[in-house]
Amino acid sequence: MGRVIGLRCVSCGRIYSPDEVEYVCPRCGPIRGTLEVLYDYDDLKKNLKVADIERGPLSQWRYLPLLPVSGSRGLPRLRVGWTPLYRSKNLEKDFDFGELWLKDDGLNPSGSLKDRASQVAVAHALEKGREIMVAASTGNAASSLAVNAAPEGIRTVILVPEGAPRAKLAQLLVFGAEVYQVRGTYDDAYDLSIELALRKGWYLRSTAYNPYLGEGKKTVALELAEQLRWKAPDWVVIPVGDGCIFQSVWKGFRDLHRIGFIDSLPRLIGVQAEGCSPLKKAFFEGKETVEVRPVSTIADSIMVANPRDQVKALKAARESGGTFISVSDQEILNAIR
Amino acid sequence: MGRVIGLRCVSCGRIYSPDEVEYVCPRCGPIRGTLEVLYDYDDLKKNLKVADIERGPLSQWRYLPLLPVSGSRGLPRLRVGWTPLYRSKNLEKDFDFGELWLKDDGLNPSGSLKDRASQVAVAHALEKGREIMVAASTGNAASSLAVNAAPEGIRTVILVPEGAPRAKLAQLLVFGAEVYQVRGTYDDAYDLSIELALRKGWYLRSTAYNPYLGEGKKTVALELAEQLRWKAPDWVVIPVGDGCIFQSVWKGFRDLHRIGFIDSLPRLIGVQAEGCSPLKKAFFEGKETVEVRPVSTIADSIMVANPRDQVKALKAARESGGTFISVSDQEILNAIR
Repeated sequence: MGRVIGLRCVSCGRIYSPDEVEYVCPRCGPIRGTLEVLYDYDDLKKNLKVADIERGPLSQWRYLPLLPVSGSRGLPRLRVGWTPLYRSKNLEKDFDFGELWLKDDGLNPSGSLKDRASQVAVAHALEKGREIMVAASTGNAASSLAVNAAPEGIRTVILVPEGAPRAKLAQLLVFGAEVYQVRGTYDDAYDLSIELALRKGWYLRSTAYNPYLGEGKKTVALELAEQLRWKAPDWVVIPVGDGCIFQSVWKGFRDLHRIGFIDSLPRLIGVQAEGCSPLKKAFFEGKETVEVRPVSTIADSIMVANPRDQVKALKAARESGGTFISVSDQEILNAIR
Repeated sequence: MGRVIGLRCVSCGRIYSPDEVEYVCPRCGPIRGTLEVLYDYDDLKKNLKVADIERGPLSQWRYLPLLPVSGSRGLPRLRVGWTPLYRSKNLEKDFDFGELWLKDDGLNPSGSLKDRASQVAVAHALEKGREIMVAASTGNAASSLAVNAAPEGIRTVILVPEGAPRAKLAQLLVFGAEVYQVRGTYDDAYDLSIELALRKGWYLRSTAYNPYLGEGKKTVALELAEQLRWKAPDWVVIPVGDGCIFQSVWKGFRDLHRIGFIDSLPRLIGVQAEGCSPLKKAFFEGKETVEVRPVSTIADSIMVANPRDQVKALKAARESGGTFISVSDQEILNAIR
């Protein structure tokens, strides 16, 4: 149960063995060649019971049979996941669509959903005997990696672009990461992180490029279903930058549906900022990839011009019968008040 | 079970009925006249079982029988408490005293242990039919109150001193608090908050002055014992500003000991900054209250010249066979790295 049986390219459909390919489809490359992690769903459907999950720890490791980790080498110890789901009757009053629930993933160790991905990456690195992990980042993803890797004795190397905010660098150093400033942009740091990972065998924490990260992020969908007593919501609304959470939520619900834990699937709404909505544009133009244009919004953490998980995210919106919407900076500011 | 049977003045020892006195001993006043919340420990010892607690929700409300709240009016809904307890084998290597455990109370809704106190205060206000709560604060305590009160429809009025940081005011406004700037210092705002509470019947969220807040904070001790399988640690190390957490941890262990849930009590070590260590000084001088002197340290959140819970905190250190220590700003900086 729970063993990865293949990695399927989201564009050409070719299936690789997990021993054969680590990150992206060699034929389609990054962006187009992101891989989908496949499990033996027939076996899971037959042998995994709801009660097995419900007996598990109150963290994302309760979903171990649906994750690409065996647990044989121990699991990272920080408590990630099983965050609260609140019904907001106050907000419901402003709308007219029934129940509204909010998932507070701020209650993870580094304060964001990224911990779900980081921890699966750390677990994976441990099982592969990797002692160094690398990531290009200036912010939350790197902090999340550093804080989850440190207790396991895994070294983290973070590549940051010139001019990265000093406060964020300080946080990384406090978490014990080795931080290197790259003479160049974020994209330069990103390319270098991939090069280092491939050349030195360091394990790469990179959204989309590493297919296992999304498997961590999908646990938020598994929790949503379980917390709603194994029922999918009608709609799930998700802010979208790289599209990794968006596609992972869809993967999570699909996995649960395939093994018969839920009877229906939700429709997904991706929310982008008006000044940075490449996925919304591509979605309504019927395209499979985005056109990269200059972007600008106050919502800096979802300001991504060329989303790394765009192919899967666009597929997820279409397959789920969902859509993308955008909101103006003024609407964001009004909503905060 | 779990009903408050009295409030005992920490200095004169007089016991008041909870209907008779709300905040401090009328004879001894603030600082000297802080009150201790008493339960019917004989009844609890006879009728409360470990299994009753262990069946409860994974939040601080699992300890409802040991809290001054009946739950009859519903309980605040944000998930507070049942934060993780981690054994740190990495840090243990640097010392020579056996197991070292860390309690991560950053995983509460507003990011601090203060949520434990705020939520008990909100629950108490709900049961007393109070619709407005008031606090003097510039920072974390006010945020914690606002975020826990908002979902329950309770209004929060926060009084801040002139020159309070704008970022903290913004956070309060986002959480829906009504924020008023007082022409004066924090002490002026504090005095005004008490006056407003007494005159208008607003419910006061003020450490030490309101005896019920400490009952919320004590849940961290109840959790520590339960997470260690109903065993007290040998020592508990606690940073100390007002002394409220320090005395509450002691109260929590004493409550558990009185009802027979644990066999031994821990010794408490209070940690102050070298530039602000009034409790350490008073402790070693054998005094019951501190001498107020100018203070200075980079550890701003524990920089308190006249700790509001000083009498109970000094008693807690002595009763537990514990002590106070202080660390220099340089040591604090070194430890962060």
